[in-house]
Amino acid sequence: MGGSQFVNPDDEQYAYQIGVMIAREGWILLNGGRASGIMEASAKGAKDNGGITIGILPVDDADWASQYIDIPIVTGIGMARNIINVLSSDMIVALPGSAGTISEIAIALKYGKVVILFRFDAGDWLKPFQREGKVYFTNEITELRALIKKKLEEISHNKKRCLW
Amino acid sequence: MGGSQFVNPDDEQYAYQIGVMIAREGWILLNGGRASGIMEASAKGAKDNGGITIGILPVDDADWASQYIDIPIVTGIGMARNIINVLSSDMIVALPGSAGTISEIAIALKYGKVVILFRFDAGDWLKPFQREGKVYFTNEITELRALIKKKLEEISHNKKRCLW
Amino acid sequence: MGGSQFVNPDDEQYAYQIGVMIAREGWILLNGGRASGIMEASAKGAKDNGGITIGILPVDDADWASQYIDIPIVTGIGMARNIINVLSSDMIVALPGSAGTISEIAIALKYGKVVILFRFDAGDWLKPFQREGKVYFTNEITELRALIKKKLEEISHNKKRCLW
Amino acid sequence: MGGSQFVNPDDEQYAYQIGVMIAREGWILLNGGRASGIMEASAKGAKDNGGITIGILPVDDADWASQYIDIPIVTGIGMARNIINVLSSDMIVALPGSAGTISEIAIALKYGKVVILFRFDAGDWLKPFQREGKVYFTNEITELRALIKKKLEEISHNKKRCLW
Repeated sequence: MGGSQFVNPDDEQYAYQIGVMIAREGWILLNGGRASGIMEASAKGAKDNGGITIGILPVDDADWASQYIDIPIVTGIGMARNIINVLSSDMIVALPGSAGTISEIAIALKYGKVVILFRFDAGDWLKPFQREGKVYFTNEITELRALIKKKLEEISHNKKRCLW
Repeated sequence: MGGSQFVNPDDEQYAYQIGVMIAREGWILLNGGRASGIMEASAKGAKDNGGITIGILPVDDADWASQYIDIPIVTGIGMARNIINVLSSDMIVALPGSAGTISEIAIALKYGKVVILFRFDAGDWLKPFQREGKVYFTNEITELRALIKKKLEEISHNKKRCLW
Repeated sequence: MGGSQFVNPDDEQYAYQIGVMIAREGWILLNGGRASGIMEASAKGAKDNGGITIGILPVDDADWASQYIDIPIVTGIGMARNIINVLSSDMIVALPGSAGTISEIAIALKYGKVVILFRFDAGDWLKPFQREGKVYFTNEITELRALIKKKLEEISHNKKRCLW
Repeated sequence: MGGSQFVNPDDEQYAYQIGVMIAREGWILLNGGRASGIMEASAKGAKDNGGITIGILPVDDADWASQYIDIPIVTGIGMARNIINVLSSDMIVALPGSAGTISEIAIALKYGKVVILFRFDAGDWLKPFQREGKVYFTNEITELRALIKKKLEEISHNKKRCLW
């Protein structure tokens, strides 16, 4: 996740590289699905490298999806779809953004998800979540990849403990 | 779509066969994602034949998904997720069901989608939609396949006309 | 609830009279809130008689509410707001309508609500619900009022049994 | 809006006083409707002074509403109901809270609403919105009342300009 308007070209380039990395790891990229900003850049990075992309659209028409989205999920529920983005993801990576991105980070934390902020400090309110191991900050894609791998293993380990 | 409880074993068998057919045609199966009734049977049919399955879950936890669902979309919005099922599909196939299935058929028609009822007569209120070419009835899977193909071509043709 | 387009003038007149009756009984009228069809007629009937009206709007702007709505609830979730209409009501009265109205009746029954159909037969799929005492049919406003009173007493009685 | 758990007693007392003020001004109080934290305290303040209170519930059962809520709107859409809280309000007052409150502030700003933070600094990301006149900070109830009055007049003035 990240901004959809007035996006810094550097951030868009990073979003593309994160999409590349996600595809190469064999992970699925899920985002807001529209043809703008961080969303489109990350989806393009994933598609250019054979990844699978899912877009959770706010509108009620699949024609709004970015051309780099394989599977548009058409919700028609407006910004309420941000909850679905968050709940459907094992982990959230947030690039710089404004109110929309902040709301997604906050919703993710409310639901107990892990959020990794990439070159983005969204404020002091994140500190208690950082202490609990729910929020991480990184500036490098190699570090991001390592962090995602580690946290995915923990999630998968915790799930097993719940089931057995 | 179709019933999730008290489902007739014949209907479950048909749901499985429809899942098989959808996978063999290379189409994506999207349903409500839970591990019961018509939903699970159709997803199993698709997965047993190499298909891709998407489940739009009403709850806020992916662990509720059927084991035959590849991609669980976790909405947390309860029965309101039925709107997403409908909007995300190019076409709706409805097997026998009760109030939940009727509501999905009605929502689909409200949004102008094509609905094919399989061995299911959901009432006289469908007649005006049948006259408009939005509702079809069939009892046979070969006929269902032909009907889906024909209507998909029309949708794709209409889309082109909109864009050009 | 009831149709929003192509509404029979008789039905609109009945909707108005039902709004009048609801206001006189001191009940709150809740509907879809827009300025058309059965919705607007019933809200006008209630407001002309000092009632309170709530409108659950599909759009993201309160300016779409009918002038006869006191309290617009602005959802921005499109047709998914029909679930909120149903869940927020103690009882549903349905006048003739098409797919939108059918979907609301079906959602109400899925959630175990009582639905009274006024001069409207929405199909054979309602029969099992009629046998369970969840669906009623009536053609007269005096009978409708008596029926609502009786079912409200039962709901209130059942709630007490749950709590004690 | 504000925290629902681990709420500082001072903040709860302020929430009560803000509820009192809202009722005395003849405004309607709308919040998340549950029986805890800032929500319940503000609703109690309003009800103790003859105000009207509306609660937008995340669950699918009205029995979860606080006893100080007059009109429970039952959504069944979980945390997605935060969007409805925001869209249905002319103005948002935010007391200290955690991720849930931050998400509501962010959603409100995304939709262009005015947000007044009461004894709460939710982070630097608010600064651009403060410069645009969408975010205000205050520590006193008399100042809060004056600010709400001023902004309500502006909203009402802008609406007229749109319509005429």
